[in-house]
Amino acid sequence: MIEVEAQIYIKRDGIVFLNPQKVALLDEIVRSGSLSAAAKSLKISYQHAWTMIKEMNRTAPELLVVKQRGGVNGGGAEISEYGKNIMKEYQMINDTLRKMVGQINVEINL
Amino acid sequence: MIEVEAQIYIKRDGIVFLNPQKVALLDEIVRSGSLSAAAKSLKISYQHAWTMIKEMNRTAPELLVVKQRGGVNGGGAEISEYGKNIMKEYQMINDTLRKMVGQINVEINL
Repeated sequence: MIEVEAQIYIKRDGIVFLNPQKVALLDEIVRSGSLSAAAKSLKISYQHAWTMIKEMNRTAPELLVVKQRGGVNGGGAEISEYGKNIMKEYQMINDTLRKMVGQINVEINL
Repeated sequence: MIEVEAQIYIKRDGIVFLNPQKVALLDEIVRSGSLSAAAKSLKISYQHAWTMIKEMNRTAPELLVVKQRGGVNGGGAEISEYGKNIMKEYQMINDTLRKMVGQINVEINL
């Protein structure tokens, strides 16, 4: 079966700061509240996950993830307000495009 | 400036056989009629370009590129009829999504 898929990238001044892999990492951080649990769930190393976070935070207009040291949970990763907004926006764009691509998939003849 | 970009992937039975990089390579082959000129123009090695072609041809439903040995041009790469059709389809999907993403870019507030 031939199928079209659209992947969404969010850029700031031409530089991508959010791609599907990074959004998946943010989703997992929300779900688990921990960067190491998120990395495990995505089958990537903690180091790789942490590098992705640093890249995002450096290139996005505002911090997306804030690292918490200590506290009752022994430290963790938390999505900032800005990060939550952008995840919501990404999800909305994704839903819109997915519907459209679904329509294209009905119509293509490859 | 924050901007959304959508990239299109074409899959067969769940495996991507066409992505933006591969489409750019096909476009350059059409333009130059030669795999080495296409590779040069995209600033990738001939070997890398040839590996991309082999991957596409292996995973697509039909051959996209046929290699020509000898002949007046001393051999070259040519896009198959199927390849031309799929490039046209990809272009149409791309144009449709680009319009839509353009609209999203007007509306987002990130």
